[in-house]
Amino acid sequence: MSAVIDTPTTTGTTASGGTTRAGAFGHATNLRCRACGAEQQLGPFYACFECFGPLEVAYDFPTVTREQIEAGPKNIWRYRSLLPVPDDIASIPNTEPGYTRLIQADNLARELGIHKLWVKDDSGNPTHSFKDRVVAVALSAARELGLEVLACPSTGNLANAVAAAAARAGIKSVVFIPDDLERPKVLTTAVYGGTLVAVRGNYDDVNKLASEIAGEEEGWAFVNVNVRPYYAEGSKTLGFEVAEQLGWRLPQQVVIPVASGAQLVKVDKGFGELVSHGLVEDAPYKIFGAQATGCSPVAQAFRDGHDVVQPVKPDTIAKSLAIGNPADGPYVLDVTRRTGGSVADVSDDEVRDGIQLLARTEGVFAETAGGVTIATLKKLVETGQLDPDAETVVFNTGDGLKTLDAVADRVGPAATIDPTYPAFTAAGL
Amino acid sequence: MSAVIDTPTTTGTTASGGTTRAGAFGHATNLRCRACGAEQQLGPFYACFECFGPLEVAYDFPTVTREQIEAGPKNIWRYRSLLPVPDDIASIPNTEPGYTRLIQADNLARELGIHKLWVKDDSGNPTHSFKDRVVAVALSAARELGLEVLACPSTGNLANAVAAAAARAGIKSVVFIPDDLERPKVLTTAVYGGTLVAVRGNYDDVNKLASEIAGEEEGWAFVNVNVRPYYAEGSKTLGFEVAEQLGWRLPQQVVIPVASGAQLVKVDKGFGELVSHGLVEDAPYKIFGAQATGCSPVAQAFRDGHDVVQPVKPDTIAKSLAIGNPADGPYVLDVTRRTGGSVADVSDDEVRDGIQLLARTEGVFAETAGGVTIATLKKLVETGQLDPDAETVVFNTGDGLKTLDAVADRVGPAATIDPTYPAFTAAGL
Repeated sequence: MSAVIDTPTTTGTTASGGTTRAGAFGHATNLRCRACGAEQQLGPFYACFECFGPLEVAYDFPTVTREQIEAGPKNIWRYRSLLPVPDDIASIPNTEPGYTRLIQADNLARELGIHKLWVKDDSGNPTHSFKDRVVAVALSAARELGLEVLACPSTGNLANAVAAAAARAGIKSVVFIPDDLERPKVLTTAVYGGTLVAVRGNYDDVNKLASEIAGEEEGWAFVNVNVRPYYAEGSKTLGFEVAEQLGWRLPQQVVIPVASGAQLVKVDKGFGELVSHGLVEDAPYKIFGAQATGCSPVAQAFRDGHDVVQPVKPDTIAKSLAIGNPADGPYVLDVTRRTGGSVADVSDDEVRDGIQLLARTEGVFAETAGGVTIATLKKLVETGQLDPDAETVVFNTGDGLKTLDAVADRVGPAATIDPTYPAFTAAGL
Repeated sequence: MSAVIDTPTTTGTTASGGTTRAGAFGHATNLRCRACGAEQQLGPFYACFECFGPLEVAYDFPTVTREQIEAGPKNIWRYRSLLPVPDDIASIPNTEPGYTRLIQADNLARELGIHKLWVKDDSGNPTHSFKDRVVAVALSAARELGLEVLACPSTGNLANAVAAAAARAGIKSVVFIPDDLERPKVLTTAVYGGTLVAVRGNYDDVNKLASEIAGEEEGWAFVNVNVRPYYAEGSKTLGFEVAEQLGWRLPQQVVIPVASGAQLVKVDKGFGELVSHGLVEDAPYKIFGAQATGCSPVAQAFRDGHDVVQPVKPDTIAKSLAIGNPADGPYVLDVTRRTGGSVADVSDDEVRDGIQLLARTEGVFAETAGGVTIATLKKLVETGQLDPDAETVVFNTGDGLKTLDAVADRVGPAATIDPTYPAFTAAGL
């Protein structure tokens, strides 16, 4: 299954100051500051040495063909040549995320008055959210950099993904959660047997502690802190897959949830890489961002015509999107404006409606984040921002089994009957 | 993506006595009695007209090649030529189940002292259990037979799969549940918007009512009653996938959970079909069945050397395997004895251990049924029934998110700390 690609020779710097093995990061060459453009060596770094701006991975790509990709495994590693991972990544124990369903959603399209609609359903991932993608790339970086602990602050999907990935890889994980986290969410991470640390405080307190530890402890890979440049690249695979599953072409419109905003920005980056490699035709597309009104700083900035995002205190049932100060907010504004899309938001009741609408029409049970994108899609059509005649892809990035409370007061049995045939017929079902 | 196969001309009888379209059941030709061998036309039948024995689907297969299969979609329809479904099945709205992960489980193998072990993880299916496979085939039969309602009695996975598949197909579903079913299990079916009927009574009462309705109502497809012969064929795809994912060869040993027993029997049938088509080399394999001690009638019959199974009243946390009078019990005994395997059972505490063991070693969070197979695998090694030097595949057929209670008292945070770095270092994690 290995593609015929020259082994790259670029190396990086390990946590202990040594040199990584050749090809440790595939065709990645550097980390580049997204603010000032300064470059530095690949390593466990996330802030620019010059200006403290956010870093991203830079590459010197070889020629990549559809045939090479199609010959790869049925998971994100089929795109390994476009990620900061070694060529043998698929054979190193990992959770094998990705290549989830892209389903043609004719029933939902009909209800919304859209001509052609697809749902990218990332609930089919190993721990049932898109976080398995980004964590898998972060884990590879951690391993190649000689880091020995995989860690994160989280209240949900990210915690599940980190604990599962570390278990499978046979390395230590430490996950930090608020001490008042609901019991089911504790269990779904604790079951993997890593170290779970309850922190007295709210999520902001937990996050702050994690950043402090990341700065102090050598050998720790906080997936969304000191290996974030690698981690974020994992989201490109959502864009790669959509295009490949459409038969190697770009959709005309995409609706993507916005938490930190990195996912949306990386899908755009992924589309761009496919074009520059000649893997898809260069065609215009619009990217739309979706937020819950209770945490909608990017939508607000979009409406106000601002380039920066004013932080908010989140208050929404869509917990997995509840980042009040989104790091990639400005980039989301840039991408949506540049492509002709927009950022919109929906109320918690609309989120619940969205979950039920998707389940009823397409048999996909989304978590609240999926309710946000479906409800936003509906709103974008109703307000004329999204063209109903253009082919559209909407993302569901998580699983309804994790946010059952969202629909708890809304659905249930149509009737309760005695266990007899006459009772059944009398019910007139 | 269509394979070059002649369109079959066999037709069947619809529910209203008409004729199905040509090729409605692919290369299936008849229903054949598993007891007396009598044949009858394809239709909504499950009991032999001669002896009331159980019916199964008979075929006149064309030549099927690896290339044809590999050119198909990445779901169970890549095997459509070997299923009772039309050649255009992949293009008719369905949940697109199957082609789930087969992961090499080196960590678990090491702990159990097994040379080479794989986990077939069916929790990646659309509603996170193997039931999506069988329901997808049942739905196709229902449609081709002109049946208008997809129905089942169930308390869990089957209910989820039926409601989701019907929603996506745009047909009516009616799911019957006991009226005391836990609220989370009600929600995960009700969210799809089909008709949910609570029945005053236990699961046996619900089941009996369903059979009565199936006998009385025309136009209803009870997936596991009147379209059961088609439904059951869906489990062959688990066997097909394991062989294809191993690089087109059979494993030497397989450990499969036993509820009705149909899954185990159909995996064996699937292996046999692969051999007869020349798709894999004919090599010996052993099939092992796994039950929870609280519902282990087949394991008991195996130990006692009986050919028939004495029904039991189930009492186990492995609810999805709790069938006290398993229809395919005798066939399970036949398959496991013929292949040199066995049927064993494990206590509920061992089931919990099994769930934790799999999660901790491989990052896979299984439902109780998966705990049963992992714990049984361990027991089979310890008792010398399973050869640790032979390549082994163990099935996880469901998702831990659906049976959180099983681990609720066993896992949790290692420590609770204040949100400060000194508190973190003092905890010594």
